[in-house]
Amino acid sequence: MADKIKYALGVDLGGTSIKLGIVSNKGKIVTKLCLPSNAEKGPLEVIKQIKSGISQILSASKIKLKGIGIGAPGTVSIKKGTVENPPNLPGWNKIQLGRIIQNEFKLKTFVENDANAAAIGEMIFGSGKNHNSFIMITLGTGVGGGVIINKKIYRGEFGAAGEIGHMSIDFNGPQCNCGAVGCVEAYVGNNYLKHRIIGQLENNPGSKILELVNNEIEMITPIIVQEALVLNDVFARMIVNDMGLQIGAALASVSNLLDVSTFIIGGGVSGFGEPLFSKIRETIVARVLTPLKKRVKVLPAKLKNDAGIKGSSALVFYKS
Amino acid sequence: MADKIKYALGVDLGGTSIKLGIVSNKGKIVTKLCLPSNAEKGPLEVIKQIKSGISQILSASKIKLKGIGIGAPGTVSIKKGTVENPPNLPGWNKIQLGRIIQNEFKLKTFVENDANAAAIGEMIFGSGKNHNSFIMITLGTGVGGGVIINKKIYRGEFGAAGEIGHMSIDFNGPQCNCGAVGCVEAYVGNNYLKHRIIGQLENNPGSKILELVNNEIEMITPIIVQEALVLNDVFARMIVNDMGLQIGAALASVSNLLDVSTFIIGGGVSGFGEPLFSKIRETIVARVLTPLKKRVKVLPAKLKNDAGIKGSSALVFYKS
Repeated sequence: MADKIKYALGVDLGGTSIKLGIVSNKGKIVTKLCLPSNAEKGPLEVIKQIKSGISQILSASKIKLKGIGIGAPGTVSIKKGTVENPPNLPGWNKIQLGRIIQNEFKLKTFVENDANAAAIGEMIFGSGKNHNSFIMITLGTGVGGGVIINKKIYRGEFGAAGEIGHMSIDFNGPQCNCGAVGCVEAYVGNNYLKHRIIGQLENNPGSKILELVNNEIEMITPIIVQEALVLNDVFARMIVNDMGLQIGAALASVSNLLDVSTFIIGGGVSGFGEPLFSKIRETIVARVLTPLKKRVKVLPAKLKNDAGIKGSSALVFYKS
Repeated sequence: MADKIKYALGVDLGGTSIKLGIVSNKGKIVTKLCLPSNAEKGPLEVIKQIKSGISQILSASKIKLKGIGIGAPGTVSIKKGTVENPPNLPGWNKIQLGRIIQNEFKLKTFVENDANAAAIGEMIFGSGKNHNSFIMITLGTGVGGGVIINKKIYRGEFGAAGEIGHMSIDFNGPQCNCGAVGCVEAYVGNNYLKHRIIGQLENNPGSKILELVNNEIEMITPIIVQEALVLNDVFARMIVNDMGLQIGAALASVSNLLDVSTFIIGGGVSGFGEPLFSKIRETIVARVLTPLKKRVKVLPAKLKNDAGIKGSSALVFYKS
């Protein structure tokens, strides 16, 4: 019986690398592997790399698998099971990735957008386990989102839902790469954040951030800001407060629209920890409608390392 | 058979008046009635008025009814069928309105938040008939919203979903009555709009709006702005463009989050017609993510007069 099989293969497909791992139904990784995507060589090469990774991991392990879950960038069509126009994977228009892998390995294969897979991962293995409904937001170069309503991923009309990073918090705000203005990603996405910090450092020449990078401002990363925060740097604290306000403002709008009040926050930038989380929480509570205020919960994601592999494998436990 | 019964009673409960009507399954009103709510006398008096209205309309008509639908302000709990803390109905904490009316008249009774009822009305009788998923937004003193996904109303965890009016379009924006800042209602809700127009008229002394109200600025209403627009008033055109930008910015965020791209716009302010609609459309298309751009549709609501009665009656055809 498929139900007795306690392991699944998770494939985290990215523009730079493909990460694969066999994961138990408790979310433990048994074995894992990482290959370059070779994205610049086009979709056929990327698919070759995925197949090669799966073959390697299958031949190295005798564990029986329930299925394969793939988290992919871009829109994953519900009806057609295709991966469409993923950013960072040039040449992909519509690829029936699930069918290709399923035919090759004779294992039931599920494909999902990577941000949705992250949310499903938190639901099956992580901080979302005891919540019927929550919003997952992943802070990184991009700001991704996934919406879980009554233990189901909300996919919208065509599978493109959950783009919290492209909700605008200022209709006259800064330009975002997506073409719109004032998107929350245009404030707290890694690159935007870095540029804003660099711009504001001119007025804050005493900040410990400059010391930490030996005045080489191009070296500034969210982790440097985290280190400065630990050293009680006033400027770093201001940056984190701004981020909390910006993220919180977007999430309060999400809450008022969706009547969901639990938020799970993951990704590198979430490493700012409680100073960021408490500001996000305070902002959401101040800005949601009264009936929601008491219910607001802001939690750190539980899946940290290998969140992509675990989230992808969770698709198998979720869907089958 | 209940399915053969082609009429339902719609009750539109408001802070000032209760409007009732018998409506056919094609959305035609057969007979209607309006009573004062007497809201200031508390919930028992309001319920007495509702019962009195229903009794009058039932005794005046021999038409067999499929059920009663009530559109009420405030949050309508899914699980308990209660109306909770409706604004403009003082003293209502949690009232089991559906059960009270059903027991009294022995007719299946459905209660729903009024903005959700408006969306269901458009789905059953109006512009939403041929759309699986759409967002309904009602522009008035408040800015209400309803979300239809795959022909079902989206109610969220506790039935409070759809508060598009309280999505923020500027996280540093003007104060809204709800306690948050930059809510779209704080820009285009009737009273906010009026105050903004009055403030800006100082710099636009030649506007025809002033002529139309004989310089009595307190007389300014959205209808006056509509009249000035017809007279090609430049300032009125600017106001309408601003509104279109503000509404469009909020709806683009909704679209990116929910992957829904059809919008139906109702309420008094929507009477600005095509100048407002085209600006909303243009803003949404410019600001949604690429896969959504081609699909954006902005439609006027079809139910205009008696939309509240029709939407409430639609609950019966929708749910039974």
